[in-house]
Amino acid sequence: MRVLVTGAAGFVGHALAAALRQKEVSDLVLTDRQISGLGARPGDLTDETFVADLFSPGFDLVFHLASLPGAKAEAEPELGHSINLLAPMTLARMAAKAQRGARFVFASSIAVYGRMTAPVTDATPCHPDLSYGAHKRMTEILLSDLTRRGDLSAISLRLPGIVARPEAETGHGSAFMSQLFHKIAEGKPYDCPVPETASCWWMSRPACVAALLHAAELIGPETVIQPPVLHLTTGAVAQAVAEVTGQRPKVKWGQDPRLTTLFGAMPALNAAPALRLGFQADADARTLVAHCYTAGSPD
Amino acid sequence: MRVLVTGAAGFVGHALAAALRQKEVSDLVLTDRQISGLGARPGDLTDETFVADLFSPGFDLVFHLASLPGAKAEAEPELGHSINLLAPMTLARMAAKAQRGARFVFASSIAVYGRMTAPVTDATPCHPDLSYGAHKRMTEILLSDLTRRGDLSAISLRLPGIVARPEAETGHGSAFMSQLFHKIAEGKPYDCPVPETASCWWMSRPACVAALLHAAELIGPETVIQPPVLHLTTGAVAQAVAEVTGQRPKVKWGQDPRLTTLFGAMPALNAAPALRLGFQADADARTLVAHCYTAGSPD
Repeated sequence: MRVLVTGAAGFVGHALAAALRQKEVSDLVLTDRQISGLGARPGDLTDETFVADLFSPGFDLVFHLASLPGAKAEAEPELGHSINLLAPMTLARMAAKAQRGARFVFASSIAVYGRMTAPVTDATPCHPDLSYGAHKRMTEILLSDLTRRGDLSAISLRLPGIVARPEAETGHGSAFMSQLFHKIAEGKPYDCPVPETASCWWMSRPACVAALLHAAELIGPETVIQPPVLHLTTGAVAQAVAEVTGQRPKVKWGQDPRLTTLFGAMPALNAAPALRLGFQADADARTLVAHCYTAGSPD
Repeated sequence: MRVLVTGAAGFVGHALAAALRQKEVSDLVLTDRQISGLGARPGDLTDETFVADLFSPGFDLVFHLASLPGAKAEAEPELGHSINLLAPMTLARMAAKAQRGARFVFASSIAVYGRMTAPVTDATPCHPDLSYGAHKRMTEILLSDLTRRGDLSAISLRLPGIVARPEAETGHGSAFMSQLFHKIAEGKPYDCPVPETASCWWMSRPACVAALLHAAELIGPETVIQPPVLHLTTGAVAQAVAEVTGQRPKVKWGQDPRLTTLFGAMPALNAAPALRLGFQADADARTLVAHCYTAGSPD
């Protein structure tokens, strides 16, 4: 079985690659702009020649994780267009051309929804209010159409911001969700840009990797999945981090209206269809926190 | 005022160009693969060099009508991808680059909806079941995002099959809607592939041109519009054609399940938002028929 992971040097990609090595994957290819080691193929996915070369021969299974984060894409629209729209379009078509019907797992985003009303379900209409979300939604539609045609067998997972990303990573508007973990664990003071009552959707990296692997193996007509997530306030997560790490949280809560609207005003989610298909969220706040410190820990 | 019409040699484009000539357009450029006459710029919109050249200098207003019809796009997916997805993406970005904030009127399609439940509104979710509709929906999302950014001022009109298209035109799955007009007017027998009770959405070419011109002048936040249409059975339209032309209809009604599902099972439409904005459908079945025979008549 030949498997490709894009964005394999990234926060989620690195952990996914590690999980795939535990499985019976005869040929695992990992790509990113800068990557080394077994199976590594460094290159630029916006370079069609590189992509064509990458897909000779094709793959049975592709995990497409590479993307430019939302805030960065908003600031650099041309780069966002190339990485978040043109690259997945090229990649999907190349994957289908090289091996018709290949399984293609796409890391989509809850940014596809834009403004939401509770409860969110798979049928919630999409009105993306960032280019990042618009490009993710366009890619979902293309992948569903290629799947309808039998060219691919694609599935798009609408992921929330995954925690806890490395402190050094930039470009994510939802960075505060990860910073809470780092700062409290380190016993440092943290100026959080959103209030204690901000309600977010949370998913740990192990839960995300499990969802991606489950999506790869799923057999069924679904092409877009809203996986279950934990729906918790920033205050509740800060409290759980403090309990698990034995630290006293020194968080000053803010009122940034834009970040609060985009990431801190998430309504309830009804993920019944995904739950029926066997997808699972982190069990509770303490499990979420534990997942963030055991599996790979904050890089 | 510099205005561009793509697909200007086509059924709708030709009539739109004629209407624009009546208006105060200082510089009207008409493009299509094959086109001649005043302001004509023949060329291929999938050729980025041609498009770049076309947009130097830019336009105040662009009507993007060119597309590969749905049935043809389904049969030739690579061509459909180029013409119905890549070309509008390039065109929109080129229009914005050449003149930031330019007005961009996009001929989208009711094919964006796919399976529908009554009544259809602007909020009806989109599940396109043809590549044509998938590509139109992707383009709408891109245009809305470019508009949000201020790069363009775009508006997408979800048009039904426009009647009565020339008999010679091929590639439209909805061709039977136009054939009814031609065959009955000519007093010829016609094997209609769908039943007499098939309910379709109808719009004449003059009504379509009026909607496009109205969309160009509209000021407001709307980026996607479902214009009002006539919701009539094929039988009712056949009857009106017979009355207006004085012919006796010789139609044998069929039961093609695919065409009936795609075009002949249209639910009611609630176009209240578009009506409030001043968009108008053909007044009734006889007006629809009269519009098809007076303004330009079936080519």
